[in-house]
Amino acid sequence: MKIARFRQKRRAAYGVVEGDEVAEIRGSIFTRFRITDTRHNLGDVELLAPTAPLQIWCPGLNFAEHLEFAGSVLGVEKTPGSRHPEPWQKGRNALNAHEGRIVIPKDSWGGVHYEGEAVAVIGRQCRRVAPDQALNHVLGFTCGNDISERAWQRDDWTFWRAKGSDTFAPVGPWIETDVDPANLEMVVRLNGGEVQRANTRDMLHDFPTVISYISQQVTLYAGDLVFSGTTGSTTAMKPDDVVEVDIQGIGVLRNYVHSEE
Amino acid sequence: MKIARFRQKRRAAYGVVEGDEVAEIRGSIFTRFRITDTRHNLGDVELLAPTAPLQIWCPGLNFAEHLEFAGSVLGVEKTPGSRHPEPWQKGRNALNAHEGRIVIPKDSWGGVHYEGEAVAVIGRQCRRVAPDQALNHVLGFTCGNDISERAWQRDDWTFWRAKGSDTFAPVGPWIETDVDPANLEMVVRLNGGEVQRANTRDMLHDFPTVISYISQQVTLYAGDLVFSGTTGSTTAMKPDDVVEVDIQGIGVLRNYVHSEE
Repeated sequence: MKIARFRQKRRAAYGVVEGDEVAEIRGSIFTRFRITDTRHNLGDVELLAPTAPLQIWCPGLNFAEHLEFAGSVLGVEKTPGSRHPEPWQKGRNALNAHEGRIVIPKDSWGGVHYEGEAVAVIGRQCRRVAPDQALNHVLGFTCGNDISERAWQRDDWTFWRAKGSDTFAPVGPWIETDVDPANLEMVVRLNGGEVQRANTRDMLHDFPTVISYISQQVTLYAGDLVFSGTTGSTTAMKPDDVVEVDIQGIGVLRNYVHSEE
Repeated sequence: MKIARFRQKRRAAYGVVEGDEVAEIRGSIFTRFRITDTRHNLGDVELLAPTAPLQIWCPGLNFAEHLEFAGSVLGVEKTPGSRHPEPWQKGRNALNAHEGRIVIPKDSWGGVHYEGEAVAVIGRQCRRVAPDQALNHVLGFTCGNDISERAWQRDDWTFWRAKGSDTFAPVGPWIETDVDPANLEMVVRLNGGEVQRANTRDMLHDFPTVISYISQQVTLYAGDLVFSGTTGSTTAMKPDDVVEVDIQGIGVLRNYVHSEE
């Protein structure tokens, strides 16, 4: 089932996507809801980020093929993998939606890169959940783009602006509840050409492990987002580029790159 | 004026503190409100964290006297000061209130320390605000305690649990709108004995600078919190300790230390 959050005539609502339509729901996507007879053409609504999360979590360096590239970004020879996930938080201000603009800050000097990722949507509050129970607390999965300014990523002490500048966290287009999180094929296209490909089966720490690990010290709330991490090397985007994160079985998250005025 | 958020009979409300009473307001503390005739004794209400912020911001190493101690925590000889603020985000899940419990996680092994700080409460949304305009976007100031687990602070790549574990961000007891942010005397008492003293006049980057700097890439929203940073060296707390952050002109933030069951 595909669950979308959308705006129609200035009103925000949740709905279930069926073909080219979205059927409004009544109730909560996190507890119980029913599908109503109110339907809209997808072309007539504005898709919003699928949730309004309290927090956006990412695991550092979660693919073997990203370690060498990350080392070059951070200015060290080799970036070692870690025995456990290394969580960090993407700025909540950065939340962005399908079809939203990614804005390159006017004082950026290091290149603003894509990172296509799968994103788990927490469905039920959890704390100290075991790995084999973690997926019971996940509502579904969506596409995410961990937009990254590479000079700030290298020079600053934290990722607060490198990965947390306004518009740097596009997620969407909707939540798919029926996919296998251990086998999500993720493709990034820049202006139609494939620039990145990965599969969640290659995550060094899989979703159950990452979610369980974060929940040891942190309460995860319904709507919170957990990114997969990214793979390989990436390139800079420029104004007027179109970037897509395409995950088979979920959908395509498309965003437009602009420069800050 | 002292603005408090409180719960009374399961209902949350804002009010203005006058002596031992709090008078409920109608309207928004961020735009316009009036004081009503509904009054409660402070002892009859539960004070909540003064806002429900989208994000909690802190500047790394913002007092000269904290640099050497921070170096020893991080396992490096000397921690250099920075030409500009080094913002990081304290976990939103960690938000805690006056009289709330600080819970030492059962798997903590490095000591859980206090850090008494002043906290600016953003009153009006801002982006790319100049330093000389920053305080126009601040509603007032409150007390904060940047609770820190020192082993995780040293060993992890980020502060996600060192400073973001549940309960690690007590703020309160209320927002004081009429103080000089460049001269706030901050005292921490552990079980009644003074253990830390600092003044915001010694911030390496003052509040206007920190707020302006963050706002260059990040939209700050009404209710967001910006900590001052801390000074000197600190010590570990243990179960049954009482920790107080006392800022002259604002009030006393008191919390009780517990161990996780």
